[in-house]
Amino acid sequence: MPFEKKAIIGISSSVENHNNIPSVHVHEKYVQAVLNGGGIPVVIPIGPTEMAKAWVSMCDGLILSSGEDIDPASFQANPIPLIQKTNQKRDKIEIELIHNAIKLQKPILAICRGITMLNAALGGTVVQDICTTVSNPINHYQQAERPEATHDIIIDTTSRLYQIFQKQKIRVNSMHHQAIEMLAPNIKVVATAPDGVVEAVEGINDTPILWGIQWHPEEMAVEDPSMNELFKQFIAECNK
Amino acid sequence: MPFEKKAIIGISSSVENHNNIPSVHVHEKYVQAVLNGGGIPVVIPIGPTEMAKAWVSMCDGLILSSGEDIDPASFQANPIPLIQKTNQKRDKIEIELIHNAIKLQKPILAICRGITMLNAALGGTVVQDICTTVSNPINHYQQAERPEATHDIIIDTTSRLYQIFQKQKIRVNSMHHQAIEMLAPNIKVVATAPDGVVEAVEGINDTPILWGIQWHPEEMAVEDPSMNELFKQFIAECNK
Amino acid sequence: MPFEKKAIIGISSSVENHNNIPSVHVHEKYVQAVLNGGGIPVVIPIGPTEMAKAWVSMCDGLILSSGEDIDPASFQANPIPLIQKTNQKRDKIEIELIHNAIKLQKPILAICRGITMLNAALGGTVVQDICTTVSNPINHYQQAERPEATHDIIIDTTSRLYQIFQKQKIRVNSMHHQAIEMLAPNIKVVATAPDGVVEAVEGINDTPILWGIQWHPEEMAVEDPSMNELFKQFIAECNK
Amino acid sequence: MPFEKKAIIGISSSVENHNNIPSVHVHEKYVQAVLNGGGIPVVIPIGPTEMAKAWVSMCDGLILSSGEDIDPASFQANPIPLIQKTNQKRDKIEIELIHNAIKLQKPILAICRGITMLNAALGGTVVQDICTTVSNPINHYQQAERPEATHDIIIDTTSRLYQIFQKQKIRVNSMHHQAIEMLAPNIKVVATAPDGVVEAVEGINDTPILWGIQWHPEEMAVEDPSMNELFKQFIAECNK
Amino acid sequence: MPFEKKAIIGISSSVENHNNIPSVHVHEKYVQAVLNGGGIPVVIPIGPTEMAKAWVSMCDGLILSSGEDIDPASFQANPIPLIQKTNQKRDKIEIELIHNAIKLQKPILAICRGITMLNAALGGTVVQDICTTVSNPINHYQQAERPEATHDIIIDTTSRLYQIFQKQKIRVNSMHHQAIEMLAPNIKVVATAPDGVVEAVEGINDTPILWGIQWHPEEMAVEDPSMNELFKQFIAECNK
Amino acid sequence: MPFEKKAIIGISSSVENHNNIPSVHVHEKYVQAVLNGGGIPVVIPIGPTEMAKAWVSMCDGLILSSGEDIDPASFQANPIPLIQKTNQKRDKIEIELIHNAIKLQKPILAICRGITMLNAALGGTVVQDICTTVSNPINHYQQAERPEATHDIIIDTTSRLYQIFQKQKIRVNSMHHQAIEMLAPNIKVVATAPDGVVEAVEGINDTPILWGIQWHPEEMAVEDPSMNELFKQFIAECNK
Amino acid sequence: MPFEKKAIIGISSSVENHNNIPSVHVHEKYVQAVLNGGGIPVVIPIGPTEMAKAWVSMCDGLILSSGEDIDPASFQANPIPLIQKTNQKRDKIEIELIHNAIKLQKPILAICRGITMLNAALGGTVVQDICTTVSNPINHYQQAERPEATHDIIIDTTSRLYQIFQKQKIRVNSMHHQAIEMLAPNIKVVATAPDGVVEAVEGINDTPILWGIQWHPEEMAVEDPSMNELFKQFIAECNK
Amino acid sequence: MPFEKKAIIGISSSVENHNNIPSVHVHEKYVQAVLNGGGIPVVIPIGPTEMAKAWVSMCDGLILSSGEDIDPASFQANPIPLIQKTNQKRDKIEIELIHNAIKLQKPILAICRGITMLNAALGGTVVQDICTTVSNPINHYQQAERPEATHDIIIDTTSRLYQIFQKQKIRVNSMHHQAIEMLAPNIKVVATAPDGVVEAVEGINDTPILWGIQWHPEEMAVEDPSMNELFKQFIAECNK
Repeated sequence: MPFEKKAIIGISSSVENHNNIPSVHVHEKYVQAVLNGGGIPVVIPIGPTEMAKAWVSMCDGLILSSGEDIDPASFQANPIPLIQKTNQKRDKIEIELIHNAIKLQKPILAICRGITMLNAALGGTVVQDICTTVSNPINHYQQAERPEATHDIIIDTTSRLYQIFQKQKIRVNSMHHQAIEMLAPNIKVVATAPDGVVEAVEGINDTPILWGIQWHPEEMAVEDPSMNELFKQFIAECNK
Repeated sequence: MPFEKKAIIGISSSVENHNNIPSVHVHEKYVQAVLNGGGIPVVIPIGPTEMAKAWVSMCDGLILSSGEDIDPASFQANPIPLIQKTNQKRDKIEIELIHNAIKLQKPILAICRGITMLNAALGGTVVQDICTTVSNPINHYQQAERPEATHDIIIDTTSRLYQIFQKQKIRVNSMHHQAIEMLAPNIKVVATAPDGVVEAVEGINDTPILWGIQWHPEEMAVEDPSMNELFKQFIAECNK
Repeated sequence: MPFEKKAIIGISSSVENHNNIPSVHVHEKYVQAVLNGGGIPVVIPIGPTEMAKAWVSMCDGLILSSGEDIDPASFQANPIPLIQKTNQKRDKIEIELIHNAIKLQKPILAICRGITMLNAALGGTVVQDICTTVSNPINHYQQAERPEATHDIIIDTTSRLYQIFQKQKIRVNSMHHQAIEMLAPNIKVVATAPDGVVEAVEGINDTPILWGIQWHPEEMAVEDPSMNELFKQFIAECNK
Repeated sequence: MPFEKKAIIGISSSVENHNNIPSVHVHEKYVQAVLNGGGIPVVIPIGPTEMAKAWVSMCDGLILSSGEDIDPASFQANPIPLIQKTNQKRDKIEIELIHNAIKLQKPILAICRGITMLNAALGGTVVQDICTTVSNPINHYQQAERPEATHDIIIDTTSRLYQIFQKQKIRVNSMHHQAIEMLAPNIKVVATAPDGVVEAVEGINDTPILWGIQWHPEEMAVEDPSMNELFKQFIAECNK
Repeated sequence: MPFEKKAIIGISSSVENHNNIPSVHVHEKYVQAVLNGGGIPVVIPIGPTEMAKAWVSMCDGLILSSGEDIDPASFQANPIPLIQKTNQKRDKIEIELIHNAIKLQKPILAICRGITMLNAALGGTVVQDICTTVSNPINHYQQAERPEATHDIIIDTTSRLYQIFQKQKIRVNSMHHQAIEMLAPNIKVVATAPDGVVEAVEGINDTPILWGIQWHPEEMAVEDPSMNELFKQFIAECNK
Repeated sequence: MPFEKKAIIGISSSVENHNNIPSVHVHEKYVQAVLNGGGIPVVIPIGPTEMAKAWVSMCDGLILSSGEDIDPASFQANPIPLIQKTNQKRDKIEIELIHNAIKLQKPILAICRGITMLNAALGGTVVQDICTTVSNPINHYQQAERPEATHDIIIDTTSRLYQIFQKQKIRVNSMHHQAIEMLAPNIKVVATAPDGVVEAVEGINDTPILWGIQWHPEEMAVEDPSMNELFKQFIAECNK
Repeated sequence: MPFEKKAIIGISSSVENHNNIPSVHVHEKYVQAVLNGGGIPVVIPIGPTEMAKAWVSMCDGLILSSGEDIDPASFQANPIPLIQKTNQKRDKIEIELIHNAIKLQKPILAICRGITMLNAALGGTVVQDICTTVSNPINHYQQAERPEATHDIIIDTTSRLYQIFQKQKIRVNSMHHQAIEMLAPNIKVVATAPDGVVEAVEGINDTPILWGIQWHPEEMAVEDPSMNELFKQFIAECNK
Repeated sequence: MPFEKKAIIGISSSVENHNNIPSVHVHEKYVQAVLNGGGIPVVIPIGPTEMAKAWVSMCDGLILSSGEDIDPASFQANPIPLIQKTNQKRDKIEIELIHNAIKLQKPILAICRGITMLNAALGGTVVQDICTTVSNPINHYQQAERPEATHDIIIDTTSRLYQIFQKQKIRVNSMHHQAIEMLAPNIKVVATAPDGVVEAVEGINDTPILWGIQWHPEEMAVEDPSMNELFKQFIAECNK
């Protein structure tokens, strides 16, 4: 297949101080997952919201990556004591990227922080801290190695996700302390954890793909082919 | 000016372990400098060399950013004891990006590590460590704040660089321990430090711009408008 | 305007071990804010209370800066378990600076720790730890970048503060775990957080200005002109 | 003695990142030494050079404190490899403070970095690194506790300094790697170390006092009354 | 006694990042304890479960060493919030080592993590965190030096363990936050802490020895001969 | 006074890893306090209990210094979860030192840990952690500088302590999380904190002095002459 | 192939303090390399030399792993200033393992430290520090990622090594500061670096294999199949 | 033997900041060595020189322990650049302890720093840094574990030391960068390293013992009975 047919996948990013120098930052596993899935990864930095249209236009699909907590301002709330680091500017550009992608009919894959950002951008709200909000929570922030699965999820058999895993119950990794609270319109829950935490959502419409995943398939993909398949199908859709 | 006219500027990047997780990494000042210069920044991750053509094709210009030492394999040499961290994969993709940019007539701005990478990619060689190789060297790795100018350079009055600064002698910041050794064909030296270290090069041909800068204009641009002008002119060229 | 007309603003400070050497310490943002506001900043070190009159005499206005918890001895109480670092000597000199400033009719701007210190100096008391004392508290110690606004406050429309912001509801940054408890005589509350925490006070008399601010306008002033305006008005008053 | 008669002593300062926050910074020992010497200490922050006149005007004397290396730009040179951290802005304001103090006839006490700054401001040059420049150097950067004397100096019997110590040979502490190179006009050497390094200078004119001290009397003053006497005499002169 | 008669004791191990390099890791005290007990220690690394039979075959006895928490997947559960680091691969190989040792009639000594791993492998369950699960717990994670005894245990007088210590009540060291919950078939409790936590188990059958110990006899053996005796008896059994 | 008349004061000590090397360790302030109080300090290391008689015999008085928690074994208990580091060997030698000092009629001054150790040695028990045991506790572990007083205590007017301070209420520093629970026979409480925690005890008999102090007079003595007086009186008694 | 036929490969190890606890330590890559090469890895701890025969007897081949410097006592020398950490006990057991393996005709693969240990055990000597001993040395301690090749080696075409790589010049990774000095009898040099440093040796006799490799094939094997082949051939020989 | 016959051995000490608190500090191995050698150890803190007579009087022998460099003032010199931390107060009290011990005929054992202190106290001088002063030095600062022997020494057969070791050549541990330069009167060299560094001295007179040892017998004594014997003989002499 000639390279010009490959889908360009824009990956959102953050800014972290590395050796005390502010630096564009996104886990390299996202790049690997896009390459293994057959796409061309580019990293979209944080910038003014006016840039969002240009960035979305140059891409065939969008991955919202992991990172900071969602700023409660993004869902009209005030912060609770256990909220962690937020980044207003990242929220603002990602919300604009999401709206532009939907307008331009580009597929979205939203991972970890991404699923909560997607939900807020579409009008939902966010659990600011699972442990102090959800009753009888399981552990959602594993100390096990990042690619290791540590808890069960139950997948809706009517979902696109089920078509990939072909199982109702799988075990996934988990590194988050926030989650979807009030679901936004136009998306539906397709997987949940044993404590009821939303683990995956899909758009109500079939196309373009709108996929939210609370765990980290980009980490599990090294050892688990079905997680790799998830990226392959997403990128194939972007390529259409 | 409608946004579609803005030039897309690809910025090369590295991989650093941040909290022990390999992450795409490039100083955020490059993003700021492109935004302030009127361009649309995107970050190009390290990937297989086959990707280079696709990445160059989607951009109107290329910035080679700072970072690791040049792998001596990139200029057919073996490492000396004082060499620091190298990254073979980064060298390989950047060399391919340079060759594709030249082929596709896209302007290149190569900063710090970038100037030595550009020189090696075009057939030159690299001083592996200034202090043990150059005689009577001045300090090229300042402990002063990054944006602060710390040593003189002399600019060739016939250069494009001179048109920006309008001075033969300016003072610049400095954070490198490698430099150009044997100059590659098709580029010329346009600025030097008091100890003879090459501080800037330009392509022999006028267009597209081929600019190598040994100091860090992206850091100085915060307080020094002429450094900002450098990015503006580069991006204006990319926009043509 | 010739420089002799500029107001001299004394900024209170603390002592911190830096590289294990006790050092005068105050955030440089206070200096910037005074310079941007048109004043001449000088830093007042901690010293014997007999010095207070001399220090106040040489200044046209006083800024009480951020830092340690208020020593419960300053409001006739014993410490609760969650109190953090206190500094008796700083409390003593700042109380004396406040009393001298009031006596000599010099304006006071009291920020973060400053607002609680001002309240204690004037006869009020202090919430030693918000989370264990206030019911249903929001987050008052953000992990977001220091200049980023993270929670709402409601401003009294009859206040001097309202004249600056011209809005009843604004969003401010927040880095404190103590707050005003019993209000001192001669000051009034002019802004509160959604959980009832006092966010700003003003003197009952119009002049000289007596301003207490629980958030950090000196941090927000970089990006928010209305925060800068706050310093400008304060310094203009000192200049009268 | 009523407090209004006490001399106000301005102490120059630096900016250091403390917990990653830029902060005004000067060793608290300078404040103690001024208090013990009978003066009123205030700390002068780094600011625009236009402020220098105002700061000098409000003080009766000036102490130039310790800290960074002198920026070679302050004596028309380029940096050598072993130079350490420099701070252009601090050099600029201190040079302006020195010139204003001399113009306004205010005494100056310049300690450690101060003596080299004073020399550069008056037209002299600076040894950028003693160990690589001076032949057969002794140790000038002790690892012993800061107040502990570690090497000899020889004092000129005709100097003001000799009147304090009444000895030709005393032992002092030492924490510097730079020193006076070419002496500036209008000052004279009054003490040297065994390796010839200049340890103290005085102005050629008797008043106002112009004192440069390469060691740290403010540290030794805790245990050594003659070091305290040095501050007392300086402040007495400021009080005249 | 000629060396060929000595029992080969396989010690299970973990993988830890040491200087950021994944390394086989097991406390050296286990090696010392086996040497002092008269055995030949070898360390069994983590590997594919197919290797278990080979590893057990080459040994005369098996020591399950200390380390990570038990993955709740090993006893069909989901993790609670206070679970700590788990390692699925270690659980899998140790379960297989246990089953092979039982099948091949090789003695097992399971220490700390080992006793919970043994219980899970045989069909029992594990308390994921003592403090949040056991009522009125004593301290089971001492900050005292590792070999120091810090709490009582009560030993069943009919046990093999009692034959070694000859006391119903001894004091042991303690460094764990998990414990046996539902006891597996074929083992019995032979010692408990004052809060009811299981401190030792033995197999229902006399031979081969199946010994689970919640404390760290390998640490206490340096100063306490009876702890050394425990290893001697175990190794003597392996030698039969 | 000729030196032979000075009392020799034995100060108990601990073992700490300093640069990973086990080292005899005791705060130097105890040495200063004894010197300032007119005694000759010597440090008694931890050793076998048989040594206790020799150590007590060579001293005229005994100071029990601060440090680890009391091992619950010293008062026939098991540890609670919030106990911190204990050191069985230190407890054992200190108990023996106490018993020998009483037998040989040598005065004892027991500070911080010392007061709880003294109480346990004489048959009392210890609160293992104030915050989880005492109701409505104040802060007993200040983050203020060590010599700074942070909470009130009430002194019994009939006590020897009252004779020194001549006040019923003083403010003391505080750095402990354990305290006396059940008082031992032969000592009486002579000071308490506002939450009821025992702050000082004295022996029922007048001589030799048996003094237990929960705060740190050796730290406060630098600035507070009455704290110094406490050591003077103790040493004077040892000298009799 | 049934598993019983797999060769058991003993890997020598060291003791490192991990979280301040002495632990058996060997890079996990050795285990992976043996597993990928078709062998059964076991780790041989450091122990008394009398154990060597038992350990060699239970294995089919021996890998000497990387780590500390060779104790100069192992080749009758005294240490030079730049020697790094040595471990007498490790040297002693490895020398005995080597002698037993040769006696029992078991193959040996000696990597990095291993090649120098092998040389010393057989009667050769060791360069204690390359940089201060070898003239014009290249860099042998790369800061590049561990699996990355950084310098050339030249392979003898008559060697067993050449049969694997089929090239005279390859590029290898490098992390050592010691090397073979005087070659031991019965081994021959089969590869050298550009500066003459010995990079590989082989036994003079064909069987059993005696292989010394100065670089780290176990690190490169992840990406370089020929490095993996090296382990496969070694293990195949052990299996004979 | 009844305990009252045991010799009291005073061990000199230093002050180190431990958790930022100045603390009396001496390696615990000295205490162990004295206990194992049959003495009663007490630690002598640093204090005013007037205390020396009292401290020596209460002891039967004196051990000068390891630690800081000798202050060149103690042998009338100035420091060279590579000198490390010195401590004037420690030098002063140890010199006075030595003079008093000699006057009172008490044996002295001076270890590591002790041997150079003894030499300076008696009128000799000290090599301030071996590596920059001695030609062709061997390594005297091992990175091997502290008790491990790393270099040879040659012992004079007529010495008291030879009677203990009964060998002309032994191997010792080594952790120092200073050494004896010009030998003091009344002591003689009894052991040297291969590079000529003095490794042991003895007094010219037979009694009382005056022993200087440059290595660390207190560390080696754990595994080497002859090193333990050294302490036994010293303490036996003190007991006479």
